[in-house]
Amino acid sequence: MNLENSDKWEKIRRDENLIEKALLLAERDLKVSLENKKMGNNDWAFSIAYNSMLQSGRALMFHSGYRPKGEYKHVAVAEFLRNFPNEKLAEKLIFIFNKMRKKRHT
Amino acid sequence: MNLENSDKWEKIRRDENLIEKALLLAERDLKVSLENKKMGNNDWAFSIAYNSMLQSGRALMFHSGYRPKGEYKHVAVAEFLRNFPNEKLAEKLIFIFNKMRKKRHT
Repeated sequence: MNLENSDKWEKIRRDENLIEKALLLAERDLKVSLENKKMGNNDWAFSIAYNSMLQSGRALMFHSGYRPKGEYKHVAVAEFLRNFPNEKLAEKLIFIFNKMRKKRHT
Repeated sequence: MNLENSDKWEKIRRDENLIEKALLLAERDLKVSLENKKMGNNDWAFSIAYNSMLQSGRALMFHSGYRPKGEYKHVAVAEFLRNFPNEKLAEKLIFIFNKMRKKRHT
């Protein structure tokens, strides 16, 4: 893994609180997304699920001792996933991530 | 009203469909926001209400024959409101708009 140099993230001191907070948000948003799906609010269920995914990605970054940097933090999180050893899973995640991100902006 | 020159909006041919679509989204999001509020999903109720407000602002722009331009379309919509004659209302709306926008990014 070569994580040192990027304009998309920076090294931070690992902080368990930060990880915990991001995971709680991811969990909460997954619940809210499902509730909205059940009520037929499909567009919002989608947006909220995207946010949940983003929070999980942030948790992974914080866990690794990094945080997203710059204007496009969503992109930074997706890009960061490329650094993980199980590359097939990472590629899959990035694919879904980018697809969801594009859909949100149409 | 001096609307001609701005890097935040541009003149378009007035299109009833565009106006209608934005108003329907505003209405839909207001409903979804209230549903989420009832379920205690306060953060999302807030974000969705913000989006409803943004859609109403877009409808007003389209109605006036303009559309937001550039990277920060949210800002463009809020700024556009300044051009409306009933300035007290516009100021109030911009105030709420900016406050909500800032809250969303914290």
